[in-house]
This record gives sequence, C-alpha cells and structure tokens, in this order.
Amino acid sequence: MELWFTEQHTKDTTFSIRVTSRLVSAQSEFQKIEVYESRDFGRILVLDGYLMLTEKDEFIYHEMITHVPMAVNPAAADVLVIGAGDGGTVRELTRYQSIRRIDMVEIDQQVVDICRKYLPQTAGRLADERVNLIFTDGVKFVADKTNEYDLIIVDSTDPIGPGEGLFTSKFYADCFKALKPNGILVNQMESPYYPDDALMAQSAFKKLKSVFPLAKAYQAHIPTYPSGHWLFGFASKGLDPTADLKADLWNDLMLATKYYNTDLHKGSFALPNYVLEILNR
Amino acid sequence: MELWFTEQHTKDTTFSIRVTSRLVSAQSEFQKIEVYESRDFGRILVLDGYLMLTEKDEFIYHEMITHVPMAVNPAAADVLVIGAGDGGTVRELTRYQSIRRIDMVEIDQQVVDICRKYLPQTAGRLADERVNLIFTDGVKFVADKTNEYDLIIVDSTDPIGPGEGLFTSKFYADCFKALKPNGILVNQMESPYYPDDALMAQSAFKKLKSVFPLAKAYQAHIPTYPSGHWLFGFASKGLDPTADLKADLWNDLMLATKYYNTDLHKGSFALPNYVLEILNR
Repeated sequence: MELWFTEQHTKDTTFSIRVTSRLVSAQSEFQKIEVYESRDFGRILVLDGYLMLTEKDEFIYHEMITHVPMAVNPAAADVLVIGAGDGGTVRELTRYQSIRRIDMVEIDQQVVDICRKYLPQTAGRLADERVNLIFTDGVKFVADKTNEYDLIIVDSTDPIGPGEGLFTSKFYADCFKALKPNGILVNQMESPYYPDDALMAQSAFKKLKSVFPLAKAYQAHIPTYPSGHWLFGFASKGLDPTADLKADLWNDLMLATKYYNTDLHKGSFALPNYVLEILNR
Repeated sequence: MELWFTEQHTKDTTFSIRVTSRLVSAQSEFQKIEVYESRDFGRILVLDGYLMLTEKDEFIYHEMITHVPMAVNPAAADVLVIGAGDGGTVRELTRYQSIRRIDMVEIDQQVVDICRKYLPQTAGRLADERVNLIFTDGVKFVADKTNEYDLIIVDSTDPIGPGEGLFTSKFYADCFKALKPNGILVNQMESPYYPDDALMAQSAFKKLKSVFPLAKAYQAHIPTYPSGHWLFGFASKGLDPTADLKADLWNDLMLATKYYNTDLHKGSFALPNYVLEILNR
C-alpha cells in the first residue's frame, strides 16, 4: 500500500509527499494535528491538512524569521514569540546569549506536546530556562503589554483558523505598543504567487504599514510551502532592515547557519517587480 | 473525467496540475513534446514528461536568463542562444535595440514548430529579422566559432536526454573560445534542493569554474520547477555580475519587467549557505 500526504496549493494544483507511516493524528480544541514520517523530508508536521514543517527544510523558515531581525538588533534581550508551537523559532533564539527572556505564547498546548514527543529537532530547546511557555491566545496576551519587548516574532499559521486574529490591524497596533522604542516585529506573511495567498500577503502587509512607521517585506526559498516563494514582514519603530544591519556584529557571533548569511539578508529584501506590485497596490 | 499532469520531483515527491485539455502530443526525433491547457497556469509545455514552462510564470525564467547578463553588458550586439525552442529567451532579447544578431541554435525543430503554433506568448518574436534560427546540435555549432559573440545563453533542458552535451567542460571551453573579450555565458543550472538536482548543479558549476576565470551562480523563485528554487550560472572572461552591473544604463532603457529589476539582480547573487556549500564543495 502507498501512503501519500497531499496538499492542495490551489483547487487545481497539488503537492504530494510519499510517507512511510503516520506517527500521530490528534484533534485538539483548535485543529487537527498530524505527524508523518517520510523518506525525502524526514518527519513532517501537518495542521488542519496544511504542511507546517518538514525536518529537511524547516531550517530555512526558522533561520529567516529569527536571524534577520536579530542581525538588525543583536542586543535584543526581551523577545515575544507568538505561535511557533513546533519550537523551531525558539531553538534559533536560544542561540543568542544576549537574549534573557523568551515569552512564547501558543494557543494550542497539544501542538507543543506532540512536537516535544515527535519533533525533537525543532522542539528540543523549549526547556531552555529563559523560555516561558504560555498557552493562551496571542491576541489577548499582547493587548495589555506596553514597552516590554525588543522583538516580537509572529510565527503563525495561515490567516484562517486559529491564526486569524494574528493578521489584524488591532493586533499589530497592540504589538506596536508592546515594543520598546527600538522594537522590531517580524511575521510570516504568506506567498505572493497563488492568487489566494497573494491576497493574504497583500492584506497583512497593508495593515503592517498602517501601524508601523517602517514596514518592509523579505523573501526566502521554502520548497515545501506553496510555490516555494515565501514572504516575511519586517516592521519597526525606526530600525531599517538593511541600512541598520549589524553585519560585522552578527558575524562576530559565529553562529553556524545553513540558509542565513548577512549578504543573503540584504538580498532577501530585493523583491521581484510583481511582488512589489502586489504589496504596494 | 479529471485530467492531471503530474511531475515527479523525486521518486517520492510529486507536483500535479489539473489540465483541461491536451492540445498536442508528438514524438520528435529527440523527445516527446506535449502542450496542455490548464486553468491555473495557462498553457504548459512538457518535454519527455518534464514541465518546461507555464504561461503563468515563464516570465521569471526568461527575464532572469536574459536581463541579468544584458544589464552587465547592455552594449551586447551579437548573441548566441542555445536551446530555448519555446522562444521566450529570444522574445526578451529582441527588446534590446543594441542587439543586431541573435543566432538561435535548437536541436529539435519540432519543438519550435509546436511552440509557434500553441505558445505564441513565448514564440511570438522568433520572426524578428535579427533572429537566425539554426536547427542543429549546439555542441557542434559552437565548436568552430571564435571571438564572435558578446553573450551566449544556454537555455537547455536537463543534463539528461538531448541537453546532455550542453553540460560538459568541452562545450564550455568551446563557448569560451566563441566569446569576445567582454563575453558572458549564462546557463540554466538546475536546483540546489533535491539531491539529484543538486548534484547536477554542482557538476555544471564545477565545469564552468574550470573553464572561465569568473564564474558565479544566481537564483530565482520559479514556482513550477522542482523546489521552486532555481539556479543560473554566470561565467565571463572578466566582467563581474554585480561589480560591473550597469544599473543606471539598464534602467534608462525603460524596459518593463515583471520579475527582474536591478536591485533584485544584486540580491539574486546572494545565495544561502547550504547552496554555497553545494556549489563550492
């Protein structure tokens, strides 16, 4: 018997991975959580039928959502992570000695429990003593915070289902208030390629720009996400992601990375014309 | 009945596009040629089962294989294109008034005939009076050329089947000889992601470097190619793709492009660490 995981990138376009076994399938209060084993990609995490990560290429997403803002402000000490139940973002953050506190707010404890058991590659650093795991709605959590964080990373699912509130102007405004004067917000911002994804990216970026004085987008090659062309948002109270890049400082940290480097950092903000047009329309 | 075109990206990974009809299926002397109609991607060209182009995103490949070298040497006048039977590369080249001759050498006339009939979006400029269509093996064609071209674009299929000879050191050495002192060679160079593709990229780049004093790689997001992460090679007798970029000159040409711009040009040469490691191993 052949087992395949298939994701619909659109109604008429699919991407399929042959899996060797299903390790877990659970229905939490918020979503369906599945982990499969595969030959090409190692273990894969699927939420509500959407591929969230593969062990083969999760490094790309997690390095790009973490090291880009950290290389602009390598002195960041207080970090808020919203979502990110698989632990990959926290894993990258714990590599910085300058960070003294990581508040990780995940709505679905069951995702974290399952990742701890089945995905130690990403979840293995959640026990770091600087990490405070808080299981609640990120939208509510951030609402009463003021001038508290150097960096907020919104590592959410898509803007449908439990992640929906993390793509609203109200939420971005609360994040703005929760950030210190040098604060940076980074979020995963969907893909510019398939029309439905592009609309989500456009909407999220428009809201970011309406709240933050500086908002830019950057891109990465993430082969197992729809189209393989993924966007992130970078918003701040003033720090510019390329003009204020501390390349020497970051390189002095000697962090070994598989995707990120400071040249690529600058290059990732140079977007194709069609993407610029979508984002600025 | 549902019709799907499915490409195996690996033995255990597939990408599928729902098609509405098959417009043509022919077996030439060299390969199987098919054109399908689809809702998401417009018409798609398939050679020996591999997706060569879709009307939705062929602009990315064709702009990146053409405008990158042309922006480094906007005075290029004599251009050799090898492969490129769909005509998309020639379409982009004909937009430059400085170009006085385009020798296009394609081994398979039937590909050109079919693209002229079914893919006018790419093939529509093959009738430009500066274009000389030559149906022969590019490897043989270039062997006796000396100091003749400003630019050679190797727009080949994969290094299996009819395109195999276009990935050899002998061929690159003949191209070197065929180029003028300011000459540039650009080639499509596969993907760094899936292991078999990465080996092909590595091998091609190693050979380029052994022949040309300057060889670099650049990348683009091409969602319908395996992994969506595609590499191109840039080799020259001295011109550097970023230090010698003539951004102002190119922008003064006022060519409207949907993917390429001169910021992205620079960014596309900033590669992820894992790609650098593959290419330089």
